[in-house]
Amino acid sequence: MPRFAERAYNFSPGPAVLPLPVLEKVQKELLNYRECGASILEISHRSKDFLPILDETQQLFRQLTQLPDNYRLLFFSGGAQMQFSAVPLNLLSRSASNRASYAVTGKWGELALEEGKRYGSAEEWMHGREDRYNRIPNVQAEDLERLKGSAYLHLTSNNTLYGTQWNHFPQTGEVPLVIDATSDILSREVDFSQFGLVYASLQKNLGPAGLTLVVVRDDLLGHHLPQTPKLLQYQAIDSQNSLNNTINVFAVYVMRYVLEWYEEQGGVAAMEKQNRQKAKLLYDYLDESDFFLTSVNPPDRSLVNVIFNLPTTELLQQFLQECEEVGLLALKGHREVGGVRASLYNALPLTAVERLVEKMRDFERKALT
Amino acid sequence: MPRFAERAYNFSPGPAVLPLPVLEKVQKELLNYRECGASILEISHRSKDFLPILDETQQLFRQLTQLPDNYRLLFFSGGAQMQFSAVPLNLLSRSASNRASYAVTGKWGELALEEGKRYGSAEEWMHGREDRYNRIPNVQAEDLERLKGSAYLHLTSNNTLYGTQWNHFPQTGEVPLVIDATSDILSREVDFSQFGLVYASLQKNLGPAGLTLVVVRDDLLGHHLPQTPKLLQYQAIDSQNSLNNTINVFAVYVMRYVLEWYEEQGGVAAMEKQNRQKAKLLYDYLDESDFFLTSVNPPDRSLVNVIFNLPTTELLQQFLQECEEVGLLALKGHREVGGVRASLYNALPLTAVERLVEKMRDFERKALT
Repeated sequence: MPRFAERAYNFSPGPAVLPLPVLEKVQKELLNYRECGASILEISHRSKDFLPILDETQQLFRQLTQLPDNYRLLFFSGGAQMQFSAVPLNLLSRSASNRASYAVTGKWGELALEEGKRYGSAEEWMHGREDRYNRIPNVQAEDLERLKGSAYLHLTSNNTLYGTQWNHFPQTGEVPLVIDATSDILSREVDFSQFGLVYASLQKNLGPAGLTLVVVRDDLLGHHLPQTPKLLQYQAIDSQNSLNNTINVFAVYVMRYVLEWYEEQGGVAAMEKQNRQKAKLLYDYLDESDFFLTSVNPPDRSLVNVIFNLPTTELLQQFLQECEEVGLLALKGHREVGGVRASLYNALPLTAVERLVEKMRDFERKALT
Repeated sequence: MPRFAERAYNFSPGPAVLPLPVLEKVQKELLNYRECGASILEISHRSKDFLPILDETQQLFRQLTQLPDNYRLLFFSGGAQMQFSAVPLNLLSRSASNRASYAVTGKWGELALEEGKRYGSAEEWMHGREDRYNRIPNVQAEDLERLKGSAYLHLTSNNTLYGTQWNHFPQTGEVPLVIDATSDILSREVDFSQFGLVYASLQKNLGPAGLTLVVVRDDLLGHHLPQTPKLLQYQAIDSQNSLNNTINVFAVYVMRYVLEWYEEQGGVAAMEKQNRQKAKLLYDYLDESDFFLTSVNPPDRSLVNVIFNLPTTELLQQFLQECEEVGLLALKGHREVGGVRASLYNALPLTAVERLVEKMRDFERKALT
């Protein structure tokens, strides 16, 4: 494994790159948080030093998203996949027949559907398997009609493995729209009032791994099935402001600094602008090249995970190895998909993508001569 | 709130004090872990840099506990309370009548029982409520007889709120003994072969908050109820070596350094020796004093959470405030119990207890003159 005296360009799909100023703050105060006499790792989740951190984190998120007042912000242990179980456990009973609908546009949607089926009649509403998940289904009026009576519609807003993203969300009317926004939360401006529930684990755009944010419209609280473990009940967590038991103090603490950094950069609008620049740079080069290949349907291309491939396995391996050596890290595609995956989350600087495109150009030229 | 330029003495019940050399290592390599080009917070749980950390953590724990080969080491998101649900979900079906027994010796036992009742006929086997949880029940042969047919016996090995601890575990024979060892794991030498399952969240003796270690005898895998969320199924987590989804990379990483530090100090035997010294110092003073009061039954006194009180509420408040001011932190008792709680986990140095006893002596003298 190549070693680097300095920080390299980190295209990791998650846990992902964090803003350097955030890491520097964490490092600086790691032994003694703001002179409280202890590390942030050593203080109680009910302490006078932590409670303002939790509060500020929630306030910052509300500001950044202009979140309507009737939404609650909850934190749950674990990653988004724990919500694959929590969502049906908490919402299925809203339908008399425990029925829910799932748009399956990739692996995470498949796994979410599987957990939905554990607790009720979760149905695959639309899917993109025939196209190897390289496009987002085209939703027609009759598809929306079929949602009637569902407890909710669940979809994955961005598909990390396949590099597709929902650019327009279905207008589901009375049926709450539930989205797994793990990989694109705060990457673009979105009107949260169109969602019933949004969840995202922290390790892409919000902080380190181990905690999940759940943003839920308050009328959706209080419907959990009796077999729901106490710590997966949305209402129970809301009633204690996510402090039912020891929360992952460190993750919330890092998240606060990440959100503060977004604010300083100009908020979500500024993040989106830079994300569009980064993605355009890479997609423009992919469109221009006959060597690097991408099969994602252009209107559905993800802003944050750019998937492509090379003509042969040998060239792919060589490319990935050369990238690693020059400090363009973690570009290997997901093991179930292969190829290259460049994850361009908020904290990844434009320079990183410029370097990657240079490397691609250089590699292509050498390979073709 | 008093501020401290240097680290103070931290008696926090959890998240608790960590060894300073561990924090210094974390701080040093926070921006670039071992020259991999990224922070430990920014690398994949499947990366070549993280996998050895997970492996070493498991190996170190096995060495420190001399764990028999037929036990598996699993990691679960969240704290011990998530296991209050996971234990019955995974083990109840071992009894034909979904019956389990709970020894209730404090608040955590009460909450564990409540979750057990959610999934089957969980029964309170013995309890200490009449004595305000200030003693551990005396187990007789006929009590053990009553366990027959139970899927398991659950108990809390140390009761953080009430300062009691099981010094001898019931010999449950065929019925697996399940213990919540969150607050005393690795604080004393224990023969793990007497347990079916041991769980402990990290934030006392193992690392930061947000992750729980589950040590389970391999014949107890594979019995989960159908309604068990995928990520709470012991067998599913075991089959993927706890990497089913993104693990809390940072918590495992800190845990490795904590376990390495224990090894360097002489292992669990050395920890136990120092813990006994610390506890003796404090209990000896309490026994000698007529001013500071403790009502815990002496044979059941906890080595790690020492609970005591002062003659009046005013004196209690004054004592706690003076302690804070001189850098003896987080001594306030649990809100449901009141009084003083001094938590003496592994990383708390003997000096801290010496300072506390000095302070108590000084306060008592002033109060009585």
